[in-house]
Amino acid sequence: MELIEKSIAAIQPLNRAVFDQADERLANQARPAGSLGTLEPVSASLAAIFGTLDVHLDHKVIITCVGDHGVTEEGVSLFPQEVTPQMVFNFVNGGASINVLGKHAGARVVAADLGVNYDFEPDLPIFHKKVGKGTANFARMPAMTREEAVRSVEAGIEIVNELKADGPLDMLGTGDMGIGNTTPSSAVIAAFSGIPAAKLTGRGTGIDDDALANKIRVIEDALKLHQPDPDDPLDVLAKVGGFEIGGLAGLVVGAAAAGIPVVCDGLIATAGALIACELAPAAKDYLFASHRSVEAGHRFMHERLGVEPLLDLQFRLGEGTGAAVAMELLDAATRVLCDIKTFEEVAIVDAQK
Amino acid sequence: MELIEKSIAAIQPLNRAVFDQADERLANQARPAGSLGTLEPVSASLAAIFGTLDVHLDHKVIITCVGDHGVTEEGVSLFPQEVTPQMVFNFVNGGASINVLGKHAGARVVAADLGVNYDFEPDLPIFHKKVGKGTANFARMPAMTREEAVRSVEAGIEIVNELKADGPLDMLGTGDMGIGNTTPSSAVIAAFSGIPAAKLTGRGTGIDDDALANKIRVIEDALKLHQPDPDDPLDVLAKVGGFEIGGLAGLVVGAAAAGIPVVCDGLIATAGALIACELAPAAKDYLFASHRSVEAGHRFMHERLGVEPLLDLQFRLGEGTGAAVAMELLDAATRVLCDIKTFEEVAIVDAQK
Repeated sequence: MELIEKSIAAIQPLNRAVFDQADERLANQARPAGSLGTLEPVSASLAAIFGTLDVHLDHKVIITCVGDHGVTEEGVSLFPQEVTPQMVFNFVNGGASINVLGKHAGARVVAADLGVNYDFEPDLPIFHKKVGKGTANFARMPAMTREEAVRSVEAGIEIVNELKADGPLDMLGTGDMGIGNTTPSSAVIAAFSGIPAAKLTGRGTGIDDDALANKIRVIEDALKLHQPDPDDPLDVLAKVGGFEIGGLAGLVVGAAAAGIPVVCDGLIATAGALIACELAPAAKDYLFASHRSVEAGHRFMHERLGVEPLLDLQFRLGEGTGAAVAMELLDAATRVLCDIKTFEEVAIVDAQK
Repeated sequence: MELIEKSIAAIQPLNRAVFDQADERLANQARPAGSLGTLEPVSASLAAIFGTLDVHLDHKVIITCVGDHGVTEEGVSLFPQEVTPQMVFNFVNGGASINVLGKHAGARVVAADLGVNYDFEPDLPIFHKKVGKGTANFARMPAMTREEAVRSVEAGIEIVNELKADGPLDMLGTGDMGIGNTTPSSAVIAAFSGIPAAKLTGRGTGIDDDALANKIRVIEDALKLHQPDPDDPLDVLAKVGGFEIGGLAGLVVGAAAAGIPVVCDGLIATAGALIACELAPAAKDYLFASHRSVEAGHRFMHERLGVEPLLDLQFRLGEGTGAAVAMELLDAATRVLCDIKTFEEVAIVDAQK
């Protein structure tokens, strides 16, 4: 718990002076004021984080947190649990969606085992942060103990600290993999918001109507059974969350503490980001929502976080794929701020003044 | 007119066999079916255009078509007409928004003078395709003659042909600049769709309520005065269009004829694309809508074209900026199709079968 508290305390407020300076430069560029839409505030936020208008996101890393879920026993997913470790090998071998989109975005992709029900060899090039071999089936008991919840968040923070110790790090992307993990993610936003599970539960990898009705029932019953306390994010995580969701929360806390912008991906990564920001509201200044996925619960998470996602590409994949695509936009935003000339610089009449 | 007809006749239908092959590969990739949303059909379309699943968009060019508009006499814009040539120099010097975003997308940016009210030196590195020194004020007379409309579309086709003769060309982006040009663009979609100008006219560079009401009145009056024939796209272009809008139409016809995908930008570029596809519906297979801008008329254009824009970043700039950002997504889509491994390739159980 000490690492979590220390990290939260280390989060610095944004540099408002640099934000305002960025805003002024954007307004003076030789184009109609505000005409580059959502890229403008994003570019000013990045400037404020780095304390300069000339931001270079040269070192980008996407961490794909992986875990298994006991609740798959309830038939909430289309795929069997064995696919989880198989996908870890796919990440390591570079053939998965996130490898392809991460490479396109110029980001290194590393998987992190937070709780896969499989014993990986210690020399497998992933972050080895296993908290348990899959959560318990929260239809019957809490997904994990409070200690395990703390441990999973700490693991995420540790990953950031290890990455930073390893070399320069300019931007972190968060992604997930874990068969069954849209179920705990929907449960997490239901627990915080009180919105009925039926409104925020989606089809995950593509379940049919009957399976969806069952998934909703499983979430509703679990919330009734465990009564997670919405004012205690670690209680929510422990009762209806997942190990990789805790890790994803830790990544956000750790990145914010380290002064690094963090781009969250889909439903699961955003569930983690939500837990992080419930624990540490100051982390929001470092958080960028990459996209709005097809999953119904995602928009409720964004609303609660008060963030507007950059993209809506109808993704429902996870792994960090949306974060990867958004990183290219964030990178473009840094160039917008720094490289587009002002009216003064190009001696064009500014009719807006 | 001969060049237009020849180009339209040269447009080949898409390679359906390759499209289906792409679709099958996407469905077999080790991820939930359809989980990469709008990138999937886009990647299959690109494969069909190039006749291969391994598409490489190495040579991208964005053409920013520039023209002036007599209708600025009616007070429809915030900026004076002198800004148009000033921005051409800004494009040439590399300090404009499109230079910055084009560079980020790995695209070459070239401006094209279709009708600027300024005499550029012949050695200025732009496409010199001036049809006239600004259109006539269509509040009083047709914007141009039918011959000038033909000439402006031909100029766009010529640009594509010259680019192709110059070296490899894998993707074309279309952008615009021209003080006052949201007015003719809104008039164009109003003429084709019959939708009242009030519903599809926006604030352009940022005019206030009074100026907006005036702009709507100018468009409505012009449509009543000239009665452009919606079944005759060149009549619409001549009566309420613009020289750069004709050039933008020609770029789409020329790209489709050359078998090159073309990404259209905002309201003005899409007005050009609309005229192109009204002239040559087969060109639609080569057209990708980059983004939905803030301008009200833009969505009506997309609806009429039957295309779904990839992005909504609240842009309202033009120049090709949205096309540039979308090019990065299209490039990512080619990697998605080719590089993400299938279930068979990575030996993972496919629960979807």
